[in-house]
Amino acid sequence: MNLNRVAILAPGLLGGSIALALRERQPHLRLSIFARKKSTLDEIQSQNLKADFFTDPTQAVQEADLTLFCMTLGAMPEMAQKVRPFLKKGSVVSDVGSVKGSIDTSMRAALGNEIHWIGSHPMAGGEKSGFSAAQSDLFEGATTILTPTSESHPSALQLLSEFWKSLGSRIVLCTPQEHDQRVAQISHLTHLTASALVRAASPESLEVRGPGFRDTTRVAAGSPSMWSEIILQNSVAVQNSLSLLQNELHQLQEILKNSDSTALQEWLQKASSLRSSLSFPPPKEEKK
Amino acid sequence: MNLNRVAILAPGLLGGSIALALRERQPHLRLSIFARKKSTLDEIQSQNLKADFFTDPTQAVQEADLTLFCMTLGAMPEMAQKVRPFLKKGSVVSDVGSVKGSIDTSMRAALGNEIHWIGSHPMAGGEKSGFSAAQSDLFEGATTILTPTSESHPSALQLLSEFWKSLGSRIVLCTPQEHDQRVAQISHLTHLTASALVRAASPESLEVRGPGFRDTTRVAAGSPSMWSEIILQNSVAVQNSLSLLQNELHQLQEILKNSDSTALQEWLQKASSLRSSLSFPPPKEEKK
Repeated sequence: MNLNRVAILAPGLLGGSIALALRERQPHLRLSIFARKKSTLDEIQSQNLKADFFTDPTQAVQEADLTLFCMTLGAMPEMAQKVRPFLKKGSVVSDVGSVKGSIDTSMRAALGNEIHWIGSHPMAGGEKSGFSAAQSDLFEGATTILTPTSESHPSALQLLSEFWKSLGSRIVLCTPQEHDQRVAQISHLTHLTASALVRAASPESLEVRGPGFRDTTRVAAGSPSMWSEIILQNSVAVQNSLSLLQNELHQLQEILKNSDSTALQEWLQKASSLRSSLSFPPPKEEKK
Repeated sequence: MNLNRVAILAPGLLGGSIALALRERQPHLRLSIFARKKSTLDEIQSQNLKADFFTDPTQAVQEADLTLFCMTLGAMPEMAQKVRPFLKKGSVVSDVGSVKGSIDTSMRAALGNEIHWIGSHPMAGGEKSGFSAAQSDLFEGATTILTPTSESHPSALQLLSEFWKSLGSRIVLCTPQEHDQRVAQISHLTHLTASALVRAASPESLEVRGPGFRDTTRVAAGSPSMWSEIILQNSVAVQNSLSLLQNELHQLQEILKNSDSTALQEWLQKASSLRSSLSFPPPKEEKK
């Protein structure tokens, strides 16, 4: 399999960042970009980004060896059915969605056997959305999860894996179901917890907010409609993760009721040691 | 009241940052620094920081118009009793501690009527500790809470307020009791929630951690002994805040059980709108 042309459907924060990163890191690749609105394409073209631009998705995908669905989860299956007759036989289709289990089944059904579908989920992004928030270095040092199944073709997986690596990502492979359990804990629960912290804060306490509250709640500013969709699509795994968190908080409450200094220090120590042992790529610079 | 000399007792992250900030922003002020260990003083002197250095706190405080207790909460009352006979009559004593109610009473008792005690709490810092983590711009744009009571002398409050403003802080005044309720919600609960998130994460989910988890849990790496002391000193207010958070999470769990998309979107919307409306000073650059 050769990768000569990539099609990006819906160039928002993630799709737009892929486009910017490709132009910097893979200048030889040809690029097709579909956006529903002409004004979005105008915004991208005004940055002199070299690509072919389409407001018709069926045209955008026609020559692509790799087509990336970068729209919201709910819009994906319908778009897949729409473009299916125009996709190159044997080409690879992937996405950037935050939930995989249900989407994997519906995308596989919508695309049929002549297209190689494998899900992707770059663990990158932020609380802002749209092409204006896109950054060419968004995937540098980030983890991208790929979710092949027993039906996935090894060459398709290799092409997709090399693609994400070329944008600076490290790759983690797991099944769609494992993916959903992992991100429920590390991403969806994180979003909900940050949101709960903001909701619990009184105006008086917010008046004295500092850098700890700033960082701990940053993600809570994300799009409510996007996150609501993600969380409901992954509801069972999210509920399980939420129970785990509630168990931790309940344990903490008992410790505080008993004023058990040793137990509290141990409780905090486990979190501190574990958190200190984790490395992360450094924060990206904010776009001016 | 004139401010000619400041004494800093225990130049860790906060005390050290005050020293660095003073040398940059108030070069005319004289500075006395006490540290228990000679090696700490050697580290500071190696940075050519202009000050008088002491390993005996009773000497460090003698000429100071403002003495700042920057050690852990538990060590403060004993140190106050030790230095009390050597403090200048009519001078101002403050601290940087994270809890005020109980400490305010014990410091007032330990220092007596001839010393002006007013608590300070700069909402700045980080998960690192010690002078090596100190930063001269730590207080720029930060909020510093001062906790005067009906017994506080207006001139002492003015001196302390001007001092923190000169380091770049904005000032919020409240009683020691109000302080403890506010920081329980905005700081102590934040620390505990971040810690609970880390504790709840499985090794498999940690493998795919991204920038959201990085920021949301940053503070959990803080010192377990320091935080355990803070939280137990403010246990009642922290338990109340914890209940507020648990109410939010319980409400969320009901929404998820019912797959109530509208309610979930509203729940997220409140957090997103509120978080988006908050301004913060930009993150400080990490020390190399």
